[in-house]
Amino acid sequence: MTTIAFLGPQGTFAHQALRTLPISADAELRPEASVLFAIDAVRAGSVDAALVPMENSVEGAVPATLDELANGDPLVIADEVYLSVSFNLFVRAGTELADIRSVATHPHAEAQVRRWLRDTLPGVPVSLIDSTAAGAEAVAAGAYDAAISAPLAGELYGLTALATDVADNPGAVTRFVLLTRPTAPGPRTGNDRTSLVAYLREDHSGALLEILTEFASRAVNLTRIESRPTKGRIGQYCFSIDCEGHIEDERVGNALAALHRVCADVRYLGSYPRRDGQQGPVPAGRTDQEFIDSHAWLATIRENGTV
Amino acid sequence: MTTIAFLGPQGTFAHQALRTLPISADAELRPEASVLFAIDAVRAGSVDAALVPMENSVEGAVPATLDELANGDPLVIADEVYLSVSFNLFVRAGTELADIRSVATHPHAEAQVRRWLRDTLPGVPVSLIDSTAAGAEAVAAGAYDAAISAPLAGELYGLTALATDVADNPGAVTRFVLLTRPTAPGPRTGNDRTSLVAYLREDHSGALLEILTEFASRAVNLTRIESRPTKGRIGQYCFSIDCEGHIEDERVGNALAALHRVCADVRYLGSYPRRDGQQGPVPAGRTDQEFIDSHAWLATIRENGTV
Amino acid sequence: MTTIAFLGPQGTFAHQALRTLPISADAELRPEASVLFAIDAVRAGSVDAALVPMENSVEGAVPATLDELANGDPLVIADEVYLSVSFNLFVRAGTELADIRSVATHPHAEAQVRRWLRDTLPGVPVSLIDSTAAGAEAVAAGAYDAAISAPLAGELYGLTALATDVADNPGAVTRFVLLTRPTAPGPRTGNDRTSLVAYLREDHSGALLEILTEFASRAVNLTRIESRPTKGRIGQYCFSIDCEGHIEDERVGNALAALHRVCADVRYLGSYPRRDGQQGPVPAGRTDQEFIDSHAWLATIRENGTV
Amino acid sequence: MTTIAFLGPQGTFAHQALRTLPISADAELRPEASVLFAIDAVRAGSVDAALVPMENSVEGAVPATLDELANGDPLVIADEVYLSVSFNLFVRAGTELADIRSVATHPHAEAQVRRWLRDTLPGVPVSLIDSTAAGAEAVAAGAYDAAISAPLAGELYGLTALATDVADNPGAVTRFVLLTRPTAPGPRTGNDRTSLVAYLREDHSGALLEILTEFASRAVNLTRIESRPTKGRIGQYCFSIDCEGHIEDERVGNALAALHRVCADVRYLGSYPRRDGQQGPVPAGRTDQEFIDSHAWLATIRENGTV
Repeated sequence: MTTIAFLGPQGTFAHQALRTLPISADAELRPEASVLFAIDAVRAGSVDAALVPMENSVEGAVPATLDELANGDPLVIADEVYLSVSFNLFVRAGTELADIRSVATHPHAEAQVRRWLRDTLPGVPVSLIDSTAAGAEAVAAGAYDAAISAPLAGELYGLTALATDVADNPGAVTRFVLLTRPTAPGPRTGNDRTSLVAYLREDHSGALLEILTEFASRAVNLTRIESRPTKGRIGQYCFSIDCEGHIEDERVGNALAALHRVCADVRYLGSYPRRDGQQGPVPAGRTDQEFIDSHAWLATIRENGTV
Repeated sequence: MTTIAFLGPQGTFAHQALRTLPISADAELRPEASVLFAIDAVRAGSVDAALVPMENSVEGAVPATLDELANGDPLVIADEVYLSVSFNLFVRAGTELADIRSVATHPHAEAQVRRWLRDTLPGVPVSLIDSTAAGAEAVAAGAYDAAISAPLAGELYGLTALATDVADNPGAVTRFVLLTRPTAPGPRTGNDRTSLVAYLREDHSGALLEILTEFASRAVNLTRIESRPTKGRIGQYCFSIDCEGHIEDERVGNALAALHRVCADVRYLGSYPRRDGQQGPVPAGRTDQEFIDSHAWLATIRENGTV
Repeated sequence: MTTIAFLGPQGTFAHQALRTLPISADAELRPEASVLFAIDAVRAGSVDAALVPMENSVEGAVPATLDELANGDPLVIADEVYLSVSFNLFVRAGTELADIRSVATHPHAEAQVRRWLRDTLPGVPVSLIDSTAAGAEAVAAGAYDAAISAPLAGELYGLTALATDVADNPGAVTRFVLLTRPTAPGPRTGNDRTSLVAYLREDHSGALLEILTEFASRAVNLTRIESRPTKGRIGQYCFSIDCEGHIEDERVGNALAALHRVCADVRYLGSYPRRDGQQGPVPAGRTDQEFIDSHAWLATIRENGTV
Repeated sequence: MTTIAFLGPQGTFAHQALRTLPISADAELRPEASVLFAIDAVRAGSVDAALVPMENSVEGAVPATLDELANGDPLVIADEVYLSVSFNLFVRAGTELADIRSVATHPHAEAQVRRWLRDTLPGVPVSLIDSTAAGAEAVAAGAYDAAISAPLAGELYGLTALATDVADNPGAVTRFVLLTRPTAPGPRTGNDRTSLVAYLREDHSGALLEILTEFASRAVNLTRIESRPTKGRIGQYCFSIDCEGHIEDERVGNALAALHRVCADVRYLGSYPRRDGQQGPVPAGRTDQEFIDSHAWLATIRENGTV
């Protein structure tokens, strides 16, 4: 039986997102206490996959996820889920706003309600814990006065919502990714996405322009590009990139091979069905057939000097 | 008398960094409880400037600083400071590792010691508070068992170091920036940096390539580029950029004007002396004189059809 | 009274093209024996303008015209004319194909009938003279047996057409340009063309890519680009360029100023109404207003640090 | 026995250039009356190769050669020769300048002495014939009064030099190419050149920028680029290109394959030893080994999802 870890405990957004994936229907869903634990469980082989948040429309990338994907044993993305998120302020029954002396939540949620918390609960310390659901659980246990959590978590732990939809920017969406140990990419669907990390050569100014040119000259659109420090010194970056298409697409595979040449390193993070939007038609000169034809042409020229 | 806010309380890295700036010698230094408070004090006019962290060699950009610079009332960077940082685990005298049930630190410090904490204090909740020094203060007051703080803070609050230099990646450097309300840029020094935020037009694929080309065609090197979500939907970014040179340099001013044309918006964040490295000579065709000559040439041609 | 030179004598294609220009109605039209003579007459001030061929759909650029525009005293293009051309083989009455021992024509015409001549009159020497009409005149005078000329010329000199429309590639079009001494460009019409010569810096590889980028980043389309040797050594080129738009257009003027910076030299050759096709709308970010706004924005930022 | 055609008759620059090639030592050298005849002899198989002029440091490309290479049955360049050229004005003994009523020369020579002829022999018609040596021969036969020819030709036909080194620009160099029917390219020498013609897609603005980017992104320098009309309508071009390197070099072969995708057509014109200058080292990321590695990497990723 397939086992899938998620950022637990029960009742997190990750849990909710995981339930929307068909693969979860027959799987054992295993809550883990942190993104790191969920990812390590995949790496260790104790689960088959893990669903973790990758980016959020408000806060941007989830650094822990990006950094784990960029370092350590390789993992690949097998699928993605987009989930609308909203936050409530949960307390034990009877607690009033004025009684709140401590708040618990997950760092990423904290970033999305920071201004609201500062305005509503000025001076109240915010404790950073491993999930929004754990915050609700801890409030229920009396460890904190309040938690910023998903609606489901408050319900699950019998809490009261003192305020609902408290995000500084309403309408937030989180993108989750399903991680597995490396394996051959799934089949092409015609609307795929490919993820990778490109490590720049240290001594090479203009390197980002060079990387973007390799994609642009093959008409491969980027859907996300994030700079990340390379755990070295300030001013040294790698780039976490999502592009349209599948590594089996010739234009995508060739762009990745070109990156492999001009970058210090390229880490492939998977090709998988894209769950938002629809890519346009492949422009003239960049179809698989044209790539195949061009290399057949080259081989003939090298052999005979003409076609 | 000049008053300068910093991320307090007394004893933070920001405090230490601020003391290295000559301007601080005759200024009143005012601790603020958070980056937001320090920045708001500048905006409100209750202080003249604020020193806040901008980026770190381990964790990358400080999102709160980048986001405040990108949104709300405009601010500009007047100067920068690079500071080596190291973290200690501080407790009250007598506390052993096994006694620790709670740890307090600043989110950015937490990110730099995450793995060490997970290995050393597994399962112990980490409370996120407004500064590493506040963590030390709170430990002295008995609110937490331990704090991850700067050496100076432990000393100041009479704590004991159970472990020193506990960063996951040693040798970290933090770059602080001195923010003021907008004002004309200071004079050019020949080794300056200019900061800005470029907001992409929504419907414009290839926009980042276009932005980079405007810099590259004027031979203006970028020293930092960070993508940030635009508080809208996933997949919409602005770019926080540092480039070499001063807005009074023609090549820099012209590049910014070009960005103003091709971007939805450009927010200027100041031109100021660069405190790391030394920029190379301005390449042929990009000196001030050549810009001035080229526009004089154009004016003559438009008037007379020849030179 | 305006006097306009053309590549004569009476009856040339240039003569025919000149008659289509409204300015010729009230002008004295003066035939000159060569492109060089016509151009020198303008330079010397003995005529106000000269109509000479610039390029041909079969043979490409007219080197003599390009070279005179690129060297010597400056001239500008004030207007252009497109003319369909066809060639006849003219002889004196009674001459048969087999009788032809010499053929006279203009070098540019020769290039367009070369294969036909080789097939039809193998081994017969072709004399290069200063115009196709002069060829007809010379045949009438008995100096040559046959001429390749415009229909009008044969008629004018009372010759017989042994063959009509003998061009190797039918449907040829020649573009003529009206040259004057340098003067302020005429008013913008909304469908203009600008011509120039860009001299590359010797030691600068990638210079052509750089030039094209200056146009592309300002969304200025090129309608013609010709490499020309710089009368120096092999491998050293200048580029003769036509682009859409008028030097008074900000995007065009700015592109030219940028070329002035990155090139060894730029020679402006005029902005004038375009007589073929219609340029598309100016893309977002490249309108005059956006250029003006961007520089006003820059000036404000330089003064106040904000807008 | 190898037979090699050249632009004859005996005594042309082409003849002189051909003698510098080692392959000519044991070959039968066959003069042809024109570039076209020499090339057609190769195509017809009546000779093994032909040496024809390709470009000149004064006049630029030789259109007849470029056009024959771009159209008709394919040919490839097997070698190249650079030759310094100088022109004399030859007459029969006793002829004075004032006696000259006709001058014969080759069109390409005419272009290099045009101004000198206009100044020295104003109004004297210039007859265009198939070679400079044929001009000398014709003068000797009394058909013309004077010829512009190579020194060797004057000597060969017993003529007198009324003026020597009469080129408008002294120091001219002509590059000749040795053409053969298509065959597999010769071995790589480490200092090679590759020639090709790229036909643009009609409806694709920015196509030249695209072509140049394919070379630049693979760090392949161009040593010559000429626009040529495509025998269609004005404004439609193909580009005749020489680049450094050999088609067996991965960076060169890949650039050609990329051109094959983005162009309407690419005609390969050979890879052969370069006889001027020395190419620099292949930049990082563009060596054969890096191309091979990048495609092996891609194959592994496609198979396993990781390396």
